[in-house]
Amino acid sequence: MTALALDIGATKFAAAVVDSNGELGEPQRIQVPETGVWDACRKLLTNVAGETRVTAVGIGSAGPVDVTAGTCGPLNIPEWVHGFPIVESVRKVFPEAEIRFAIDGACLVLAEQRLGAARGVPDVLAMTVSSGIGGGILSGGRVVLGRTGNGGHVGHIVVPGNAEPCACGGFGCVEAVASGKSSVRWARRQGWPGGTGVELAAAARAGEPVAVAALERAGTAIGTAVASAAALLDIDLVVIGGGFAQSGELLWEPLRSAAAAHARLSFVRGLRVVPSELTDQATLQGAALLALGD
Amino acid sequence: MTALALDIGATKFAAAVVDSNGELGEPQRIQVPETGVWDACRKLLTNVAGETRVTAVGIGSAGPVDVTAGTCGPLNIPEWVHGFPIVESVRKVFPEAEIRFAIDGACLVLAEQRLGAARGVPDVLAMTVSSGIGGGILSGGRVVLGRTGNGGHVGHIVVPGNAEPCACGGFGCVEAVASGKSSVRWARRQGWPGGTGVELAAAARAGEPVAVAALERAGTAIGTAVASAAALLDIDLVVIGGGFAQSGELLWEPLRSAAAAHARLSFVRGLRVVPSELTDQATLQGAALLALGD
Repeated sequence: MTALALDIGATKFAAAVVDSNGELGEPQRIQVPETGVWDACRKLLTNVAGETRVTAVGIGSAGPVDVTAGTCGPLNIPEWVHGFPIVESVRKVFPEAEIRFAIDGACLVLAEQRLGAARGVPDVLAMTVSSGIGGGILSGGRVVLGRTGNGGHVGHIVVPGNAEPCACGGFGCVEAVASGKSSVRWARRQGWPGGTGVELAAAARAGEPVAVAALERAGTAIGTAVASAAALLDIDLVVIGGGFAQSGELLWEPLRSAAAAHARLSFVRGLRVVPSELTDQATLQGAALLALGD
Repeated sequence: MTALALDIGATKFAAAVVDSNGELGEPQRIQVPETGVWDACRKLLTNVAGETRVTAVGIGSAGPVDVTAGTCGPLNIPEWVHGFPIVESVRKVFPEAEIRFAIDGACLVLAEQRLGAARGVPDVLAMTVSSGIGGGILSGGRVVLGRTGNGGHVGHIVVPGNAEPCACGGFGCVEAVASGKSSVRWARRQGWPGGTGVELAAAARAGEPVAVAALERAGTAIGTAVASAAALLDIDLVVIGGGFAQSGELLWEPLRSAAAAHARLSFVRGLRVVPSELTDQATLQGAALLALGD
């Protein structure tokens, strides 16, 4: 038998074959096109599958999703934003396969608990901080799915200090303040001329004051949201991956400091916030675990 | 067989006999004394039990708790704050009884789901807004206990607009901004002369501007915290009880308005925030359900 894993990301899709131990083959990736998104996704899947008989597909998608309806609606994929029937569509390609579908954050936290920094920990929040901020929750060893499979939307915890409008339609969400994209936008408004999160982190390391302030602002917001979630869920481990989380101590120091300042109740006083040890394949690895029935 | 339910509250304890249908007998209540807290609690339990053979005791306690250790440490009971062995102590009084122990918020959400405004709803946040702010979470029909049984600590979600120091040692928690006690403290700082949440609500209804502002401030903070929790957990129903939640539309209008302004993702856009239909016996009713094995 052969399983496939599919990661429907914000700007890229990735897919890979999964062996019976959950090991991924070499992933193939595509940029999400402006139009013909499903056609591109289908080709990706059939390319990866090749001639093998596919018995299971694990799909992790950027949210929001509706796992009951089997639809995903990533905010930045215009063709899909109102809900694309991903489960039904994949089933038509692989009619004999069992399709398992979850939000990317759920895949992420499965991967962190099985393979990453949360190995064996039953209560954990896994986060991605990149162009957006997302996550997944394990509580008592189970994924907190919520009503429609969107549990773990940590990016939309409202944080103090900033009423920035958010892509969700609200304002003040930690994603609107502290994602890579939001941090770059803020820094540019303060006169910093760069364009990406990677450049922002480099500028901060070089001592550029606006860049330093942008990372401090982001770290403080993330640490505050983490503390709110930790108290609400009674968890003491948060694992953070994603591109912008690689910005170094100028992000992590204020992040840990804000988390520690707010996480004061006895049961969260030992809160650990640690970088992910997984690569950008973490969601795909989680989708592979999903495909195998985890 | 006879079961007992015990509610270890912030300022009062209550206990009652539970019949096999989960119906409570007439509860007995005590004010928590300055010293000799356990003696007073033990007398309450033995008075309620009378001559009957007690086969199970359900205990709901103000947090923090440690359900693994069987201890509770309510912040405002100095003798117990560092952790009182409530399970072991109750077991010594009723050596033949099965002791079931949870945080009060877990009892509350069980009661709301079985008997209250969340009847039959598998994903719900139940809150109490009184002198403090607490709560409990059901996700997929299961209580989110967390690592040590403290899941549901919604009062320590950090909210914008105010960096008030909190009893937990942190600052900016919704409890520090929006509980009855916190709202009275804020109003008094603005020159309002009253002393209780009930007086504050009455003054607001009479049009006293500081009191009106205090309720608006509290409602906005609670609504914001509710929206953060709803996104994180993917729930669309929040039930709020407790004394200060009885403050009327001057609290509820800004509460619903803030919740709606922040809950914009597709899966929380229908978020309903409703008053509890249960009395102040809700935690005791939940402890009764706990005693019966729920």
